[in-house]
Amino acid sequence: MIFEKGDKVPNDKFVGNVYQAILSDEGTRVSNVTFEPKGRTNWHNHPGGQTLLVTDGVGYHQEEGKPVQVIKKGDVIKIGKNVKHWHGGSADQAMTHIAVSIDHEKNPSQWFEPVSEEEYAIK
Amino acid sequence: MIFEKGDKVPNDKFVGNVYQAILSDEGTRVSNVTFEPKGRTNWHNHPGGQTLLVTDGVGYHQEEGKPVQVIKKGDVIKIGKNVKHWHGGSADQAMTHIAVSIDHEKNPSQWFEPVSEEEYAIK
Repeated sequence: MIFEKGDKVPNDKFVGNVYQAILSDEGTRVSNVTFEPKGRTNWHNHPGGQTLLVTDGVGYHQEEGKPVQVIKKGDVIKIGKNVKHWHGGSADQAMTHIAVSIDHEKNPSQWFEPVSEEEYAIK
Repeated sequence: MIFEKGDKVPNDKFVGNVYQAILSDEGTRVSNVTFEPKGRTNWHNHPGGQTLLVTDGVGYHQEEGKPVQVIKKGDVIKIGKNVKHWHGGSADQAMTHIAVSIDHEKNPSQWFEPVSEEEYAIK
């Protein structure tokens, strides 16, 4: 863990054990997020777009209509404006990423339904 | 080195050996920058502000009119809008950081004079 782990986030927007520290929040939000195994976001989007920088572990990322993608330390994932997606730890490993949510102050994330067990089970 | 090292940057804005990879550039610019020992930026500012996330090594950061600050892996440095500053590796260790330059597309950095040997020599 390079940066502070932060606090456990409430389960209205996440499933399982997820920790977040907001590192800066000046227009663009920079946060450090750690997902324990099976921990994940609900489906959501970012009207300003987002970049994920995986600093540790192995996890999953999925954009709506595309296959689940395995992501790991060193990966950089760019998510376009308003693309519905989710991200989380893998079934048996934790994953930590820096999330850069562009123009988050003016255009905060929109949150949708939880990721079901069927959606989470990578094929 | 977690993320790609990128290419050596030209010495019109930097002193010494500095490598940069632009990881994303959608309004806010996210780049991975590695400074070899004594490598450093020139004095510059960011009209949109900047956050530095040190992922490896030990380096220096200085805002105009303040003392040189030693920065190391795990440190998060927030630089306000239009604050003139420089950053680089330490005298004998390399330093790598992620730089999040907020609203960089509309408000690119402004560059000034090199950091002199006297300014670089931490007291």
